[in-house]
Amino acid sequence: MTTTAAQTEAQPPVTVTVLGLGEMGTALAHAFLAGGHPTTVWNRSPEKAGALVAEGAVRAATVREAVAAGSLVIVSVKGAATARELLEASGDALSGRTVVNLTDGTSAEARAAAEWAEGRGARYLHGQIMTIAPGVGGAETVVFYGGSAADHDRFQPVLRLIGGRGTLIAEDAGVPALYGMAVHGTMWGALNGFLHASALLASEGIGTARFLDDARASVSSLLASLPFIADEVDSGMYATEYGALRHHRPSVEDLVRESAARNVDTGFPRYTLGLVDKALAEGHGDDSYARLVEHFRR
Amino acid sequence: MTTTAAQTEAQPPVTVTVLGLGEMGTALAHAFLAGGHPTTVWNRSPEKAGALVAEGAVRAATVREAVAAGSLVIVSVKGAATARELLEASGDALSGRTVVNLTDGTSAEARAAAEWAEGRGARYLHGQIMTIAPGVGGAETVVFYGGSAADHDRFQPVLRLIGGRGTLIAEDAGVPALYGMAVHGTMWGALNGFLHASALLASEGIGTARFLDDARASVSSLLASLPFIADEVDSGMYATEYGALRHHRPSVEDLVRESAARNVDTGFPRYTLGLVDKALAEGHGDDSYARLVEHFRR
Ligand SMILES: NC(=O)c1ccc[n+]([C@@H]2O[C@H](COP(=O)([O-])OP(=O)(O)OC[C@H]3O[C@@H](n4cnc5c(N)ncnc54)[C@H](OP(=O)(O)O)[C@@H]3O)[C@@H](O)[C@H]2O)c1
Ligand SMILES: NC(=O)c1ccc[n+]([C@@H]2O[C@H](COP(=O)([O-])OP(=O)(O)OC[C@H]3O[C@@H](n4cnc5c(N)ncnc54)[C@H](OP(=O)(O)O)[C@@H]3O)[C@@H](O)[C@H]2O)c1
Repeated sequence: MTTTAAQTEAQPPVTVTVLGLGEMGTALAHAFLAGGHPTTVWNRSPEKAGALVAEGAVRAATVREAVAAGSLVIVSVKGAATARELLEASGDALSGRTVVNLTDGTSAEARAAAEWAEGRGARYLHGQIMTIAPGVGGAETVVFYGGSAADHDRFQPVLRLIGGRGTLIAEDAGVPALYGMAVHGTMWGALNGFLHASALLASEGIGTARFLDDARASVSSLLASLPFIADEVDSGMYATEYGALRHHRPSVEDLVRESAARNVDTGFPRYTLGLVDKALAEGHGDDSYARLVEHFRR
Repeated sequence: MTTTAAQTEAQPPVTVTVLGLGEMGTALAHAFLAGGHPTTVWNRSPEKAGALVAEGAVRAATVREAVAAGSLVIVSVKGAATARELLEASGDALSGRTVVNLTDGTSAEARAAAEWAEGRGARYLHGQIMTIAPGVGGAETVVFYGGSAADHDRFQPVLRLIGGRGTLIAEDAGVPALYGMAVHGTMWGALNGFLHASALLASEGIGTARFLDDARASVSSLLASLPFIADEVDSGMYATEYGALRHHRPSVEDLVRESAARNVDTGFPRYTLGLVDKALAEGHGDDSYARLVEHFRR
């Protein structure tokens, strides 16, 4: 009889397969190899596997062969439809494996892939990686997973090689995509506003880095209101004593006028003005900015 | 001969006048009174001065009388045009005073007010308060000032009562408005994205507060890229090895498709998709998101 620790030591490392060696898949395969896992790779253009093979990866000739070699099958390709095709090309090799699909797509596409894989006897986790390729393996790198807690727990030591802050957020394989979109949608909105502002500052000869330096505290505090807004959205109670929409209105209009005067795009601030004016016309001037969520719910 | 310290002690407190007792002007007058400054107030609707008078403020019958009573004249009303009218109504009482105009407006309106006041023998600072009324006087409250360093320094002990983080960012009275717009424009963009995301999450039954809890690290890191983007914008060098526009494109499209499938507004993500597609059509697929600043510069 050996001890539990010895049993753990005696367990061979999890075999991993990576389908897709683009920017992200290549970084993932590197991370698994560096973590000591026997790693099999497949890519449509096989020459991309060269460096990984030199590091010890096995190049499989077909998707099916690749899938058969790993107990954990990572999918990272461009487009949910392509990821689905690869799963279908795996055929019965999928049975008994755990698929971790890290390919972006909609929540419905992730659910359909989960259903299909589970129908072939596989376990399925969907993951949304919240970093660019060089961030793979970082202690602070966030990955949102959706799937069964048992599968997530079982492979956690391997998944940790993808990102130190991987968390299972739902049993539903569709939720990680929604989380990713929520973060990215907020980011694109903020970046659009920031780049519009940069154009405004540049028209006055003010560098964006100088502005950021001077206004660091104000910019950092931009996110401080989100928890309050979240509570208003969740409760549907928007009434506010300070900072109501009627107070925002003149400031948004100033931004439109300033942009026009400086020959900077007015479409972006006019979009916000339109949202505010619609809410004011509906009698919501005493409500907070959170009221505008009603515009987005169709 | 007395010592310098004694001279300082012997100096009477600065007399302050506040024109405009809306949400903001009332909070300002309270702060000056609490700081021990003889404070004279004027408001178009005089009854709003009641509570302040009870605290020791002097209510002036006319703008001119109010201005004559203070060496520091604070203006906080709705609309730059109104602020300008009040300065004009002060007539020659303005001479020798320092005006601190905290009324929002465009940079051109602030400059015109500065020029007008200086033409009447007054000193002029423009200030952009980056908080709502209850934040007045807070140690972390940011105020951006534009005007001469000498005036700013001279009245710093009084200005500190408005916000602990007041800074002179330019000699030009127009710049604070631009800074305020840059912060607010970024905020409106981020909030629009966040509220759109909230609508998406709600369609799946996921509360915004729960999302924020799970995704705190990702949301907090949204602002981490701004200094890099600022450098790209300032240098006009947008080429990037990772996270290029061609990688953003499919994710933005996913957001459009997800929104459509869930009957959530698609106008907001389509706006971003349009910006990205325009840049891609112009051959900028290998550039970072910062390239989109070119769209805003007309
Ligand atoms: N790159 C990032 O920073 C990043 C960050 C977060 C999430 N992601 C996600 O990770 C996934 C992969 O992205 P990536 O950046 O690695 O993409 P990429 O560098 O553009 O590589 C695309 C990969 O997909 C393969 N592929 C495309 N069409 C195919 C098809 N019809 N059949 C088989 N394979 C096909 C490519 O094979 P070939 O080599 O043969 O073309 C390549 O392996 C995407 O869902 C992306 O959204 C990427
Ligand atoms: N409230 C905030 O949280 C906040 C934050 C940052 C910046 N600000 C800026 O501070 C300034 C004042 O805002 P507020 O929130 O205090 O506004 P408010 O509560 O709406 O009060 C408006 C003030 O302007 C006066 N006023 C309006 N039209 C006038 C006219 N034609 N002639 C004379 N007085 C007139 C009002 O006098 P009556 O009382 O007679 O109507 C009142 O004193 C604005 O530029 C605002 O953008 C406010």
